[in-house]
Amino acid sequence: MRIALLGGTGDIGEGLALRWAYHTDHEVIIGSRDPEKARAKAEEYETELSSRGRDVKVNGFTNEMATERASVVVLAVPPYHVSDTIEAVADSLEDGDILVTPATGIKRDDDGFHYHPPSAGSVTALVVDAAPDGIPVVGAFHNLAAGRLADLDADLGIDTLLVADDPDAKETVRLLADGIEGLRPLDGGGLANAAEIEALTPLLINVAHNNEGLNDLGVRFQ
Amino acid sequence: MRIALLGGTGDIGEGLALRWAYHTDHEVIIGSRDPEKARAKAEEYETELSSRGRDVKVNGFTNEMATERASVVVLAVPPYHVSDTIEAVADSLEDGDILVTPATGIKRDDDGFHYHPPSAGSVTALVVDAAPDGIPVVGAFHNLAAGRLADLDADLGIDTLLVADDPDAKETVRLLADGIEGLRPLDGGGLANAAEIEALTPLLINVAHNNEGLNDLGVRFQ
Repeated sequence: MRIALLGGTGDIGEGLALRWAYHTDHEVIIGSRDPEKARAKAEEYETELSSRGRDVKVNGFTNEMATERASVVVLAVPPYHVSDTIEAVADSLEDGDILVTPATGIKRDDDGFHYHPPSAGSVTALVVDAAPDGIPVVGAFHNLAAGRLADLDADLGIDTLLVADDPDAKETVRLLADGIEGLRPLDGGGLANAAEIEALTPLLINVAHNNEGLNDLGVRFQ
Repeated sequence: MRIALLGGTGDIGEGLALRWAYHTDHEVIIGSRDPEKARAKAEEYETELSSRGRDVKVNGFTNEMATERASVVVLAVPPYHVSDTIEAVADSLEDGDILVTPATGIKRDDDGFHYHPPSAGSVTALVVDAAPDGIPVVGAFHNLAAGRLADLDADLGIDTLLVADDPDAKETVRLLADGIEGLRPLDGGGLANAAEIEALTPLLINVAHNNEGLNDLGVRFQ
């Protein structure tokens, strides 16, 4: 399967790109508004993978061209860029493609990090509002620490929660998540359940911040 | 230490009462609006503990009398009874006492369970607003499945998050939590961080509901 990581030069995009390229045979495509940056990062990932004996091609393109080439498109961009990124790639999406959203709204104040959803109710809902008709949206990969994900020496042993209203799209993304070693995909229900999943991300940051020895935290439901 | 469990005849109260009485030497006192019910439940807990070779006294009283006798008072009541319960016991609280709140606001709709905080922003904030001056509030024990907690044969292996603005009160409750085998207390920061912790409870219910084989879920930060 071809997976486009829009914003694939950023933290969470890097982690997902490296993990999929390392653990699976899916083709990973890096998207960015700046194609030069996308190509440079893609080469960086290739070098990292090659140093671990994994010689695979990672291509870098504009977000539009990356979307054109892929059937699963991950919006690994900050929440405030979600809407304009979808707008930019809308014409490159076609029937059967799936949009995946890992973004969450976080606000920091003196006390810590807090969930700060957009007026749509969640970033996932924002994506649903902006997505072209007929393109299913799956929320996933919200609660993964980017640094740990991008460090292929780091064991995961954590869960990721999936929400979607389209069962086939959810199953496709579940299999993609399941391909990453140490990551257990769990069903979070429908898209309407996204807010509580997104709210877990600032909580993870607060817990890491307040407890010595706990860094780059993920979560395990048990 | 003497711990009063107001609403100690309910699900989460039962679990905490049994665990503290079984794993620690703290004196557990059951509070209820109905003292007969409190006494009956306390006897039930004694019988359960005795069947496991643990012969301890568990007393049942009105919420007011239970509060009078204890230095740590756990509000194990539904969120809509938090304010009137505090009002009822306010005169029984004295300097040095600590209020502990495990309650969270949950709303169910067709999609699943959702976090539905009171207008104060969180149930914890509601407790702070209702608490008498000088009585510190600690948020804790929000994300524990009541049935599993009350089943002394069930291993926990899960975390509980503590929030408080009073470090001494937080440390007292941390030690109480740490006394329960298999429960790891973690610092969630100040009271302002409570909402994201409370929101984890409906998420746990949604995950259990949507994934076969996962029941009575807790969470482990790792």
